[in-house]
Formats: sequence, structure tokens, C-alpha cells
Amino acid sequence: MNSRPVIAITIGDINGIGPEIILKALSQEKLRTQCRPIILGPRTVLIQQLKFLQLDFEIKEAFKALDSSRSEKVFEVLNIDLEENVILEPGKISATSGRIAGRALEVAIEMALNKKVDAIITAPISKTVFNLAGYNYPGHTEFLAEKTQTKDFVMVLLSDNFRVGLVTTHCPILDVPRLLSKDKILKKLQILNDELINRFDIYKPKIAVTALNPHGGEGGIFGNEEQEFIIPAINKAKGLGIDVEGPFPADSLFARIEHHNYDAYLAMYHDQGLIPLKMKSFGKAVNYTAGLPIIRSSPDHGTAFDIAGHGVADPGSMEEAIKFVVSMVK
Amino acid sequence: MNSRPVIAITIGDINGIGPEIILKALSQEKLRTQCRPIILGPRTVLIQQLKFLQLDFEIKEAFKALDSSRSEKVFEVLNIDLEENVILEPGKISATSGRIAGRALEVAIEMALNKKVDAIITAPISKTVFNLAGYNYPGHTEFLAEKTQTKDFVMVLLSDNFRVGLVTTHCPILDVPRLLSKDKILKKLQILNDELINRFDIYKPKIAVTALNPHGGEGGIFGNEEQEFIIPAINKAKGLGIDVEGPFPADSLFARIEHHNYDAYLAMYHDQGLIPLKMKSFGKAVNYTAGLPIIRSSPDHGTAFDIAGHGVADPGSMEEAIKFVVSMVK
Repeated sequence: MNSRPVIAITIGDINGIGPEIILKALSQEKLRTQCRPIILGPRTVLIQQLKFLQLDFEIKEAFKALDSSRSEKVFEVLNIDLEENVILEPGKISATSGRIAGRALEVAIEMALNKKVDAIITAPISKTVFNLAGYNYPGHTEFLAEKTQTKDFVMVLLSDNFRVGLVTTHCPILDVPRLLSKDKILKKLQILNDELINRFDIYKPKIAVTALNPHGGEGGIFGNEEQEFIIPAINKAKGLGIDVEGPFPADSLFARIEHHNYDAYLAMYHDQGLIPLKMKSFGKAVNYTAGLPIIRSSPDHGTAFDIAGHGVADPGSMEEAIKFVVSMVK
Repeated sequence: MNSRPVIAITIGDINGIGPEIILKALSQEKLRTQCRPIILGPRTVLIQQLKFLQLDFEIKEAFKALDSSRSEKVFEVLNIDLEENVILEPGKISATSGRIAGRALEVAIEMALNKKVDAIITAPISKTVFNLAGYNYPGHTEFLAEKTQTKDFVMVLLSDNFRVGLVTTHCPILDVPRLLSKDKILKKLQILNDELINRFDIYKPKIAVTALNPHGGEGGIFGNEEQEFIIPAINKAKGLGIDVEGPFPADSLFARIEHHNYDAYLAMYHDQGLIPLKMKSFGKAVNYTAGLPIIRSSPDHGTAFDIAGHGVADPGSMEEAIKFVVSMVK
């Protein structure tokens, strides 16, 4: 019997830094003792990457071997290979790598839904490449939501106790105001609150909500989404017993996080939440999708095509994602 | 003869923390030795505030006394009093305080244009109150631009060498995309570059520009303002000899400021620039208007109506603003 959480790790875009950060992270014995990782990706790519990184590990077919001993230098791999010849071209945009990334993701989701793995971690994909391969999703999060038939979810970025949920995610700034509604903000608050209680084990979570506009809209002079959507959603959430405050002007709110005791923040759009999170915890933050029936996390960075193939990628955020899902499973 | 820079300090909203932070800051001898401050505000309010703060200072009419000795406990005040009885009501919204704030500002601008003072510092006003008093401006910056007949300017927030200029300032997020244009971004870059050279004494400034959209628009998938306006403006600026890079996704750009050697950043909207600035330097950052014929700075915070009248306001940013304009004059 295996008591270590089984974690599926999808390879992401093979021409990005995914393969490198996965292997670098997992080469650390202290991480392998905490979980049983299964890498989902093309076997050939992983062998090539192992050689390039000069890592002295063996690759075995996942689930075939009995659970490898914790200190054994073995990576369990579930081979994902759609083409006869997968050519590694670091930094290149290719539909092939998009198809591989998508397939790895589909397999991982299925395994998680069928309880064959306890959680999944997804290495970065490029949305451009993903779309090129025919996957018309703005990102992992939305893909995961659809494949698990999840209507409502929250993209959360976190590092230790600094957790930021987003109301809108991967969309132009132009679309943000019309994508906001009282119901949507309320729903995000409910999901966030539920997850903080049920998965983060926080007895009575406290949440702060940002305003959309500068100075919180300054009483309507700089926009009225606060009055129209955000304040009504907060009031409704309070009525439902959620401990929530706001809306706060985002610049002054995030300036004082050290003095707060909020268990999470809800931001209105991508950069509003990610600027503070990355400033506070660059390289250590992880992405988490709240509201899914499965546990899913990922590093907080992208494919980093510019440094792919150079061997200099920092596996820090991938390591944090592994530690984080292990803590969630337990 | 007086060799100390003469600084006009406008009182801002008397029902906010303006009077308190001005007097607290100037009560420090080390600041008074660096400049000759002239406070513009109602004499009665300042006397009342002095008593409340238990500061043992005398108030003298500005410019009437010969230059007070540096260690003398004297505040020079230019009386601004439009009403027979000014009643201090900390935290209250009042058209009277808006009119006083506006008048102090008008006088200060005139004095600066006529070289009676070397620079001005403006204590915070509330836009709501300012508008209530009939001043229909989104903020100080726009008011100053109009009164000095300045067509093009840049609102800059800074702390030491971390300087952030804004393309759009006090407007709803909804309006940001349509307020961007190639010409506007180019003009802001030119003003920023000129000021860095001429007022900040930087020989060959290097500027980083943010993207508007998440992930820099991800090649058009999350918005096309990068392709339409930002990249063309950057290219044009490069052609004019400006050392500028971008557009960079704002979250990853600001995550690594320690590793940069940019002399300034140009952000597309208020919170995008102010979240990182305030996180990095809360309470120490100052506001500066680039492109004006006069030198003007202000603290980076608002009226703080919630703590006005409690005597707990932090004069840190006001102190920094004073030090900053002194360094600019010299």
C-alpha cells in the first residue's frame, strides 16, 4: 500500500520550460518522499531532457512498477505521444506541442476524476499554442472547469497565507467591466469562502474585496461598478454569513497586507491580483483552482520560451505547487 | 538673502488629515533647515490644529517677517479664508472646505508661476469635495495642468529610484482602453524622458513600459491595444532616441524591480502603477507632476477622512514630498 499522495504532473508545452522544471523539482529527494509523482508527457522528450540536465534518473512506465522506493532514482512516466517523431524545439510555437499539452491534460483530469491520482499539477502552456492546436480556451483554468463540468470556479494565486482570488481572469481589460455582475462576484465569494473552510481548514475565514476603479470609484466619479455590483454582492454575502469587507481601493489595500488578517483577497481582474501576489512572492507563488471537484495547482509563471532549452529555469514555483497539493491532499 | 528653497504647501481638505500632516512634518527642525515653508490655509484652522497637536509654535504672516531663523519655532502662513466662520469638522464632506482647498491651490500656482516660491506641495483633497465646491477636475494634477496652461503632463509616483508614470490617471477602468492612443503614449514617454534628463539629472534614462492586458495581450488573444497603440508608440520613441523597452506584462515586470536598472516605468492606468509603488514604498512615496512649468509634489495618500481629527495621521509621505522638492530645486 502507498500512503503518499499520488500526483499527476502534466508536461505543459514541451518547447517551454515545463519538462525542465518538472525534472529539476522531482530530482530532489525531499519532494519525492512526500508524494508519488506521475509525469504525463512524451517519454522521448523526458529522456532527452534528462540527458540535457545530466540527471541520473531512470524512467519507468507509470503504475506498472510496484511503488518505487522513495529514494530510488526513478521517474514514473505516463507516455503521451501523438506524433511519430516529436521534435524538441525550445522556444518554438508549434501546434504539435499544443496537442501534446492538451492530451496530457485530458488524461490527467480523467485520472483525477476516477481517483487514480489524488491531485494534478499542470506545467505551463502558452495560450497561443493551445489555441493553435485547436483548444479554444483562454487558459488551463477554463479548460479544467469545462472538462470537470464545473460551472463556477475561482482562479486563486497563493503563497503561504497570502491568497488572491480573481473575479475575471484571462480577458482584455476592455471586457472586465461588462464581465462583472453582482451574482458573479457573490458566487466567487461563496466558492472562496467554502474552499477556505473545507480545503484550507480555516474555521471562520475573513475575505477582503477590491474595488474595480481607482480610489474605489470615489463615490461614482471614477466609475460605478462598486455601487452597481461590488457593494451589493458584498452585502448579500454578509447576509449569508460570510465574513467579508470592502470594496477597498486596490493600491492602498495591498500596500498594507502585513497589517491585515485576511485569509484571502478577491480581486476584480488579472493584473490587479497578480501584481501584488508576484511582488510579494515571485517564484514561490502557485496557482490553484477553487471550486473544482479535483485538486489542481500549477506554477505561477508561463512557458518562458525565451529561456527554454538553456537549462537556467527556476523550479521554485513548481516545487511550491508540489508541496501545496501534498498539503491539500492531507 | 535666503538660500533655502521657498516651498508653498497648500492645506488640502481641512476636514482631512492635511493640516495635521503639514504641521507634524514641519515641526521637525531638520526639515525646516532645508527649506522655507509657507503654509497656505485658514489661519484659524492652523491655530486650532496646533493646539490640538500640542505643538509649541507661533504662526506668523508669510513674507512679512524677515526670513525666520532656521531653528525658530515659527510657521509662516498665508491666510486663506473665504468664509466668516470656518468650522472644522474632521471627516465631514463640505463644500466650504472644497472652496478653501481650491483657493489655496490657485494662490500657490500663481506664486510658483511668478517665482515667489520655488515649488509647491499639495496636501490631499477629496475629489468628491473638490467637485462639490464647483471645481470640476478629477484631481490636483489635471487642475494644475489647466492652470499652468500645460497640455501634456505625466502623473508620476516615486520613491527613491522607483518612479512610475501613468498614461491614464483618474478615470474608470471602463474608459482606460479608449483613452489610450499611440500619440498619447509617445507624448508621455517624451515628457518622462525629458524630465528624467532635465530635472532628475539622469544622463541616459532607461524606461520600461507595461502592457495594458494580462500576459501582455498574449499576441492579441487578450486584447489588441499592445499591437495597436503601445508597440507602435515604443517603436516611434526608440526612433526618437529614447531608451525604452516593453510592453511587459505588468505582473511579471513589477515582480522583479530589484533586478532592473530602469529609471522609470510607464504604466497604462492608475492601479497598475500604484499597486506596485505603494507596496514597495507605502507611506514614503510621493506624487510628482512631470511636464509642468513649476515643480509640484504631494503625498501619495488621500484625505483619510476616517482618521482625521484623531491625531494619528502619519506625516511620512508629506516629509518625503518636502525632501523631494528640495532636492529638485537644488
